Amino acid sequence: MLRSQPPSATSAERTTVQRVVGAVVSAATDLLAVEAPLEISLAYGPLAQRRQHTLAVTMRTPGHDAELVAGFLLSEGMVQQAADLTGIAHQADPRRPKERGNVIRAELAPGVVVELNRLERHFYTTSSCGVCGKTSIEAVRAESCPVPAPAASPRVPAAIIHALPERQRAAQRVFEQTGGLHATALFSAAGELLLVREDVGRHNAFDKVVGAALLAGQVPLHQSIVLVSGRASFELVQKAAVAGVAILAAVGAPSSLAVEAAEEFGLTLLGFVRNERFNIYTHAQRIVS
Amino acid sequence: MLRSQPPSATSAERTTVQRVVGAVVSAATDLLAVEAPLEISLAYGPLAQRRQHTLAVTMRTPGHDAELVAGFLLSEGMVQQAADLTGIAHQADPRRPKERGNVIRAELAPGVVVELNRLERHFYTTSSCGVCGKTSIEAVRAESCPVPAPAASPRVPAAIIHALPERQRAAQRVFEQTGGLHATALFSAAGELLLVREDVGRHNAFDKVVGAALLAGQVPLHQSIVLVSGRASFELVQKAAVAGVAILAAVGAPSSLAVEAAEEFGLTLLGFVRNERFNIYTHAQRIVS
Repeated sequence: MLRSQPPSATSAERTTVQRVVGAVVSAATDLLAVEAPLEISLAYGPLAQRRQHTLAVTMRTPGHDAELVAGFLLSEGMVQQAADLTGIAHQADPRRPKERGNVIRAELAPGVVVELNRLERHFYTTSSCGVCGKTSIEAVRAESCPVPAPAASPRVPAAIIHALPERQRAAQRVFEQTGGLHATALFSAAGELLLVREDVGRHNAFDKVVGAALLAGQVPLHQSIVLVSGRASFELVQKAAVAGVAILAAVGAPSSLAVEAAEEFGLTLLGFVRNERFNIYTHAQRIVS
Repeated sequence: MLRSQPPSATSAERTTVQRVVGAVVSAATDLLAVEAPLEISLAYGPLAQRRQHTLAVTMRTPGHDAELVAGFLLSEGMVQQAADLTGIAHQADPRRPKERGNVIRAELAPGVVVELNRLERHFYTTSSCGVCGKTSIEAVRAESCPVPAPAASPRVPAAIIHALPERQRAAQRVFEQTGGLHATALFSAAGELLLVREDVGRHNAFDKVVGAALLAGQVPLHQSIVLVSGRASFELVQKAAVAGVAILAAVGAPSSLAVEAAEEFGLTLLGFVRNERFNIYTHAQRIVS
């Protein structure tokens, strides 16, 4: 079963600052959320003709890198299930010793077909990417996204939604220290917290959660609620839809395109989930009083 | 002179929601920050051999698109001054009538040299990109960034820094309504508000401000302070350094790499600028009590 893990030792680092309060200046220490580049490469093709391709460079908080890569590959439509991946491991690059821990390779099962144009168009990404290479909203819509099956769809009491932010906060450690990380949390339909991940990039935190679920054989997440600590953009809605998430809840506001996409993808989108209040933007049938 | 402008009519749109307060559900209307894709293409080369290249697709809030493009091109090192651009205009694409207003072309002056590898590696981007195509932190550092000249460097009293967030908020309109936009504000060293821009993407808001300054012939911003409404990432520090900004102030926390880059680029980086307090992370000599 998925479980929340403590943040890795490299999620935060100490620095010295000058703290200014009114007109008073004093030396102090401060904890910083760590941001570092991760270069993701992909090995694919039949065993006799194995190929490797640098797929993306993303700015992320180190830790749970394999989950990040798994979630990224799912979001980008390159894998559908855990069996599509035979391994994800950090690589040593003798030319760049300083990048140790910042280069990782995913191995696709020999039978997984890779569309070369996907490789090309997703060559680079950053912590907030997710629509890279999709030249228009129409192109995004044309991609097939699994949506929660109506028959199996959960019905969640509003009281359970109200309780989510506090449960997520209780499990977040680095954020409280640094104020610098986004969090994504996975909950059961009964409101049980299954997993929390944090990252300087909101989309990375999301990918880490979905990637962990993928590696555990739990995708599609038809019976799950995902809570994000910030706003809901189009990209997060798209990532949620691809993972089959039933309910996406955001502590902040959704964008216009997030609402439009959630409506189309059959996703229940909640915003401003805090202080015993929230707004239901789409597919309200999954929330009951 | 630069001036704050009201948000365009397309920055926010109205939607109907179900508002849940405790156990009470009622219908309500809500304002959404608009998010829409912008495809940026570049025309370049000598007049006799003009070429065009699709450079990026970014998810942004419509409005001030030309400024966004100018700032993006500056950040990416493709232009250095207003004279490098002979025009930026929306394009009609008869194949995609729905994308009207979402396709824009920048015309480079015939003499501006375009490195083809820059074009290739920056082909796609999103609202939070800025390191696209930079395969490692070393590569980023190797790029020449103009830094504020020490001789001309401003000395800013802490009291002026304390006053910035309130001045920015007073000029922000859509954020107050939707809660869904990031803001970037440009101030003089005396704390005078020169410009505010808002966007669903933090980097877009930054690019819009810097782009406006570029088009007005005011880059490098050696005598300026830039305030961002959220956190300070590596990418924002890099964008600030390229524009020659002296002081970058963030309402939220900086990341580890943001601090490292600001130290290296000679930029004064301030975080948690709110409630009469802030932290000075780098180059404290520009702040005086």
